[in-house]
Amino acid sequence: MTNILDTCKSLLAEVRRQSPLVHHITNYVTVNDCANITLAIGASPVMADAEEEVADIAAISRALVLNMGTLNPRTVRAMLLAGRAANQKGIPVIFDPVGAGASPYRNATAEKILKEINIAVLRGNISEISFLAGEAAQTKGVDASASDIESGRAREIAVFMAKKYNCVAVITGATDVISNGKRTALITNGAPEMNSVSGTGCMSASLIASFCGVTQDYYSAAAAGILCMGTAGELAAAHAAGLGSLRTGIIDQISKLTPAVLQEKGKINETHN
Amino acid sequence: MTNILDTCKSLLAEVRRQSPLVHHITNYVTVNDCANITLAIGASPVMADAEEEVADIAAISRALVLNMGTLNPRTVRAMLLAGRAANQKGIPVIFDPVGAGASPYRNATAEKILKEINIAVLRGNISEISFLAGEAAQTKGVDASASDIESGRAREIAVFMAKKYNCVAVITGATDVISNGKRTALITNGAPEMNSVSGTGCMSASLIASFCGVTQDYYSAAAAGILCMGTAGELAAAHAAGLGSLRTGIIDQISKLTPAVLQEKGKINETHN
Amino acid sequence: MTNILDTCKSLLAEVRRQSPLVHHITNYVTVNDCANITLAIGASPVMADAEEEVADIAAISRALVLNMGTLNPRTVRAMLLAGRAANQKGIPVIFDPVGAGASPYRNATAEKILKEINIAVLRGNISEISFLAGEAAQTKGVDASASDIESGRAREIAVFMAKKYNCVAVITGATDVISNGKRTALITNGAPEMNSVSGTGCMSASLIASFCGVTQDYYSAAAAGILCMGTAGELAAAHAAGLGSLRTGIIDQISKLTPAVLQEKGKINETHN
Repeated sequence: MTNILDTCKSLLAEVRRQSPLVHHITNYVTVNDCANITLAIGASPVMADAEEEVADIAAISRALVLNMGTLNPRTVRAMLLAGRAANQKGIPVIFDPVGAGASPYRNATAEKILKEINIAVLRGNISEISFLAGEAAQTKGVDASASDIESGRAREIAVFMAKKYNCVAVITGATDVISNGKRTALITNGAPEMNSVSGTGCMSASLIASFCGVTQDYYSAAAAGILCMGTAGELAAAHAAGLGSLRTGIIDQISKLTPAVLQEKGKINETHN
Repeated sequence: MTNILDTCKSLLAEVRRQSPLVHHITNYVTVNDCANITLAIGASPVMADAEEEVADIAAISRALVLNMGTLNPRTVRAMLLAGRAANQKGIPVIFDPVGAGASPYRNATAEKILKEINIAVLRGNISEISFLAGEAAQTKGVDASASDIESGRAREIAVFMAKKYNCVAVITGATDVISNGKRTALITNGAPEMNSVSGTGCMSASLIASFCGVTQDYYSAAAAGILCMGTAGELAAAHAAGLGSLRTGIIDQISKLTPAVLQEKGKINETHN
Repeated sequence: MTNILDTCKSLLAEVRRQSPLVHHITNYVTVNDCANITLAIGASPVMADAEEEVADIAAISRALVLNMGTLNPRTVRAMLLAGRAANQKGIPVIFDPVGAGASPYRNATAEKILKEINIAVLRGNISEISFLAGEAAQTKGVDASASDIESGRAREIAVFMAKKYNCVAVITGATDVISNGKRTALITNGAPEMNSVSGTGCMSASLIASFCGVTQDYYSAAAAGILCMGTAGELAAAHAAGLGSLRTGIIDQISKLTPAVLQEKGKINETHN
């Protein structure tokens, strides 16, 4: 079996060669960063959330991101329509349940999407994913609890969710966990300051989707997305003059990322359950 | 009584210690900057505008920003729901009546919010606030008239509005005015180029809200927010390569701001009416 | 007849002198960049998309941008209301049919706007404009096909559309084409990396609108907008550390642009049909 780092390197080359179209139905807070990071990794973003067109747009795309950061009834209906269209065509759906646990409406929406749509990759922080896992988790906005991630709890929950929903589960934090229930990867790239830039989680989902657009191995695609984000963020944080520059620097570093940089800087370890 | 500058310094330390959750119902133009500046000052932003959840989100937050930059009937209803929930829980509401005076719909909405919601802090430029004060004010987009601010008119209007609505009134411009009707602070930090970056006003409101989340002294919180914005903008403008860099630099400087920087650079003077 | 480059230089000085108000009904992906580039060129942006106010806002503006990047039924109705109000007042409408060809809903909307609203300037990439011209064009997201632009096809389509809709037609790409059916300008400024920054097309439309706000010669206004974007992008790309910095650098360079820079760097050639 190929080393997971080598697979990530190959996927980076492949996304730049194929430039897959990635449909996003996402929040209006970080949507620009999602578009720009999708371009920076070499893919092609399209943002469309009208019920009148989402099924058509999803059907011509190679991956679909559903992000409920600023959900409302109209966009939730659009997410379900797009998700069904993607499922019918075999297009991978990446679901980012932003703020799950923060309101009954958000919780009900996340549950509805997980029930009605086959998800290829589920990505969130520990409080969001553990809430969806049914644990007593406290959600305060969209922040992660560092101590939870450092413990083995994130890993357990990721494996549980991957098996429950037959998907790849990604929990991002100081250590990122990616699991398909059988294989689990841990990534320790990144920098603490990334938590203070809005949208690093959303951008990770865009990267995962970009990679899902060029392979059917969604586990490796998810690992590649998180590895690129962590590596780029770590490089950007080393030189940033502050949080504004860090945001800009992340896009810069993603656009300059090469397989060689991943080889040199990537910190990814894999285990088989 | 503690010097207002010292109070602002203490509040900066406090917001970084407590990281209050700040709920925004705001426009889609500058929302990313609002999220990032809230993180940069040390608070935690949550953006949510669905009627189905705004009361729940407001209730778990420590401050609520209502900004009508790109209002529509759905979000206006959400603002009223969230505002009422915040009022019931004693959570401070910061109202930014963007573009008041520019259309009858915008005017009617601002009046409705001021009538139905108890506002802790009202923030706008001279044309917006003087329009709401009932004066014959010409609004051209969201720009302020420099000459009005330089004159004492801004101060008079701020005092008038603070008394009328039993709130803190903030009028931002070359000289910023903050008044609770009894105490009035003038801040002369900042740089003219800040007027050519979209969202500096909205970002000020996010800073004010962040500080309102850690004190019940909303007057000092408003002063702290404006002082931080002016100081950071002034520092950023001194080195910016242009308006794009200035936008990034403002977030950088906010993230690096310390009580010592406020002590050295802050230009705030207070009078008692 | 004045040289087109000299006319562009005069218009740059004029937009900075008059600071025209430019009403945008645009997508939530790149709206912040549109606001900031409008400010950077010296004009004044206002974003408003509620049916309750768009006619009022359009009527006090000097130009109206309609961009269907993230259209939905509510905003499409708003575009039609604003467009009609602008037409009645003689205010120029700049139409950016983002993603035309990508979905039936998008196509129907573009056709409806072109049928019901008198457009001063139509701006898109080769796949969008050729789709609207009725050609068999493949649209993949919002990307342009470089080979189409390099060929003379873009020029033919621009002349055709300018005559068909009695407007100025702009097709942006490696070579930008601006035509009013009688005069056609080709601009070869810019840099390939600009295609990997989200919103360079939308920002071009904002610049065109800013110039349309200070002249009734919409052909020259469109040329000035595209020339400024290309020149600024070229200068920014020469020094950018990556795609994030390029985005920031474009706004920086627009804010620093002078008639002298256009004289030195501008590559614009004009022919008469």
